[in-house]
Amino acid sequence: VNEDNGDFAGSSALPTIQFQPQENVIDLAWGHPAAELLPVNAWQAACAAAAEKFGWQALTYGHPSGPGVLTEWLGEHLGRSDGRRPHVLELFVTPGSSAALDLVSSCLTRPGDVVIVDSPTYHLGLKVLRDRAAELVPAATENGTLDPAGTARLIRHLIKDGRHVAMLYVVPTFSNPSGQTLSAERRLAVADLAAATGVTVVEDDPYHELWYDVQPPPSIWSLGPDAPVIRLGSFSKTVAPGIRLGWLTANRRMVETLKGRGIVRSGGGMNHANALAMAMFCSSAMYASHLTLLRNAYRDRRDTLAAALREHLQDVDFAVPQGGWYLWLKLSDDLASEELVKHAKASGVHFLLGKEFYINGSAENRIRLAYSRCSLSELDEAGHRLMLAVQSARRH
Amino acid sequence: VNEDNGDFAGSSALPTIQFQPQENVIDLAWGHPAAELLPVNAWQAACAAAAEKFGWQALTYGHPSGPGVLTEWLGEHLGRSDGRRPHVLELFVTPGSSAALDLVSSCLTRPGDVVIVDSPTYHLGLKVLRDRAAELVPAATENGTLDPAGTARLIRHLIKDGRHVAMLYVVPTFSNPSGQTLSAERRLAVADLAAATGVTVVEDDPYHELWYDVQPPPSIWSLGPDAPVIRLGSFSKTVAPGIRLGWLTANRRMVETLKGRGIVRSGGGMNHANALAMAMFCSSAMYASHLTLLRNAYRDRRDTLAAALREHLQDVDFAVPQGGWYLWLKLSDDLASEELVKHAKASGVHFLLGKEFYINGSAENRIRLAYSRCSLSELDEAGHRLMLAVQSARRH
Repeated sequence: VNEDNGDFAGSSALPTIQFQPQENVIDLAWGHPAAELLPVNAWQAACAAAAEKFGWQALTYGHPSGPGVLTEWLGEHLGRSDGRRPHVLELFVTPGSSAALDLVSSCLTRPGDVVIVDSPTYHLGLKVLRDRAAELVPAATENGTLDPAGTARLIRHLIKDGRHVAMLYVVPTFSNPSGQTLSAERRLAVADLAAATGVTVVEDDPYHELWYDVQPPPSIWSLGPDAPVIRLGSFSKTVAPGIRLGWLTANRRMVETLKGRGIVRSGGGMNHANALAMAMFCSSAMYASHLTLLRNAYRDRRDTLAAALREHLQDVDFAVPQGGWYLWLKLSDDLASEELVKHAKASGVHFLLGKEFYINGSAENRIRLAYSRCSLSELDEAGHRLMLAVQSARRH
Repeated sequence: VNEDNGDFAGSSALPTIQFQPQENVIDLAWGHPAAELLPVNAWQAACAAAAEKFGWQALTYGHPSGPGVLTEWLGEHLGRSDGRRPHVLELFVTPGSSAALDLVSSCLTRPGDVVIVDSPTYHLGLKVLRDRAAELVPAATENGTLDPAGTARLIRHLIKDGRHVAMLYVVPTFSNPSGQTLSAERRLAVADLAAATGVTVVEDDPYHELWYDVQPPPSIWSLGPDAPVIRLGSFSKTVAPGIRLGWLTANRRMVETLKGRGIVRSGGGMNHANALAMAMFCSSAMYASHLTLLRNAYRDRRDTLAAALREHLQDVDFAVPQGGWYLWLKLSDDLASEELVKHAKASGVHFLLGKEFYINGSAENRIRLAYSRCSLSELDEAGHRLMLAVQSARRH
C-alpha cells in the first residue's frame, strides 16, 4: 500500500481508483481484489522484462488478435486448464471482459434485438447490453442455474414471433452474483442449443480458474466445437484489473470479424504493451504460483465470511460457492432486503441488493456479499454488523 | 530494436506487431511511428515510477474518468497548449482515439443515423463509423478543408428531410490524409455550426502537437465553450501507440454519460495502469523533451521526402504539411493512381490510394505517403523508386 504522495509533482486531490472507502464501513458491495493480493512487484518485473525483450515493438501498434507470444501461451494454457485447446486463430486478446462484451455485442446486436440473459446475472454486464439498446429477456432457470431446455423453448417462441434473438449471455462458473456453477450436462446442452438455434452464446467466465475446492466443468466453448460460442476470459481476477487485459475464444470466422472491426484496424492489438508484459508474466512461473496464492487467500476469505454468517445469522440461507468472489444470501421473508440495507448503513456494513442482478427486479429477497476485497478480520466483523443490522431492522 | 528471441520460453513464430515488412519494399502506406523514436527506456522508467508511487492502486480498478494525477496534468497542459483550459470534469482518459471514437459514436448514433464526415478524411475513422451502421455523408469542402457554411446548409437540408444527423467527424489539424489544417476562422464557424444545429462535432486531433513550423490554431473544442464538441486527443503519436492511451475533452454532461456507460462502470478507468505510468512520464520533463525530439525528427522526414519528390517527380502536386505524418500527392491526369500503385509494387515502394479516404471513392487522382515510419535514407530512395514507377506506368 502506497498512499503517500509526498512531493510528487503529479499529486492530485482527485481520486486515483474506482473504489472510494467510506469511513467506518465494511464494504462488501464491490467485487474488487484485495490490495495485498495484487502482484505489484511481479507485474513490474514483467513490464521491465517485456521492455528488455521486445524493445520498441512493445510500444508500436500491436498485432490485431494479440501478440503471438501471448496467444500461443493462452493456447497451451487453455489446452491444460480447459476442455479443448483453442487454435491460435480461435484466440483474440481483449482489453478486459467489459470491453470484450461491449465489442462482441456491438458486432452481434442491433437496437431492438433480443438478448437472452441468465437470471440472476452480472448487473454491469446487463448495463453493457442495455447500452446496445437490446431488449433483455430472462432465460429459463431451474434450481438456480440456466435451464437449457426451457431456454431453447423460449428462443424458439421468440423466433416464431419474428424477433431476432442475437445472443445468450451467461456467467456459468461461480456466477456473479449467485456463486452457482452450471453443470457439465447443462453446459453441453447450452452448446447444443447454440448450434441448433444459431444464437451465439456469450460465456463470460472470469472466475473459472478461481476454484477453491474442485475444478469446475470445462467451458461451454470447449464443449461445442461447432457451436457459435464466444468465451470471455479475463486477467482481471487472476492477475489485476487495472491493466485491462483479457482474451476470448471463438470460432475463426468470429475472430476474423473482430480483427476487421474499425477499432482494431485503426488501433491495432487492443492493449498491446500490456499483452506483452502479460506474456512475460505468464511464461515465467509467476502465473501459476500467483494463482495458487489467490486460491488459498480467497478460500480463506470465503470460509471466514461463511463462518461469521453462520455464527451471527441463523435465519439467512446461502450455498457456499466453490470459487469466485460472492456469497448470495436469501433473507427470511419477514426481513425485506431494502429494509436491511438501510439499517446496515447505520451498522457500518455495505452490500448490494439482489434485485440489481435481475432485469426487472425480482421477488427473491436476496443480497450479494463480495468477500474478495476485505481482510479476514473485516469479514469476521461483517457477520457481527449484519446481525446488528438485522436486529435493528426487526425492531422497526 | 530487439528482435532476437533467443531462448525465451514465450517465443512465437506468430507476429508481435501490426506492421509486417515486405522484403525490399519501402513502405509509405502505414501511419506508424519510427521505431527509434519510441521512448523505450523513458516509458519503462515511467512504469517503474508508477509502480513505486502508486503500488497496488496502479493494479486495481481505476477511477472512471481517469486517475486524478493524469486528468489534472492534462488540464494544465491543455491550458498552456490549447485555447482553453478544460475543467477536470470536462476530461476523460480513453484507451486511444480509435476506441474513443468507437465509444463516442456508440453513445451518439443509432443505425441509419447520418454522420457527416470531412472529405477526404481518416479511412479507418470511416470504418469505425461504418461499424455503427451510420450513413456517412461527405461534408461540404472548399480549398481542401471543411466549408462550415456549406456544411451547415447540408445539415439543415438533411434535418428538414427528417434525417437524424448524429455527428460531424473531422480531423482538423495536419489532417490524415491531406496534411491540411482548418483555419481559426473556420474552426470558430464549425463550433458555431455545432451550437446552432445541435449536431455534435467529433474533433479527432492526434497531430495537434506535432507541428514543425508554426503552432496550429486552437482546437474547435476550445473555441466553442457552449457548443457540443468532443475533442479526441491521443498519446499514440506523441508517445507510443502500443500503450493505447488518449483523452478527450467534452462538456460535463457528455463526460458524465461516458462515466455511466456499462463498459466504464464495469471495467473502471479505461486503461488505468497505463494512465498512471503516463502521469509519471508527463509530470517529469519527459513529455516536453520527447515532443521536441519528435518535432525535429519528423520535420526532417517530411523535408527529406518532399525534397526527394521535388527532385524526382516534376509533375506531381502537393502542399508541404506544417505538421503530422502525411504527404498528399495529386498525380497528373495522364497517370491514374490505380496504375501507379501496380508499377510501384515492382519498383519496391508502397503507399495508399487516395480514394480510400473518401466515402464513395473520388475523382481526385491522389495517393497518400506516410513519412513517419521510414528512415531518411529510405525516404530519399522512395523518391527515386516513385520516379521509376511513374516511368514504368507511362511506358504501359
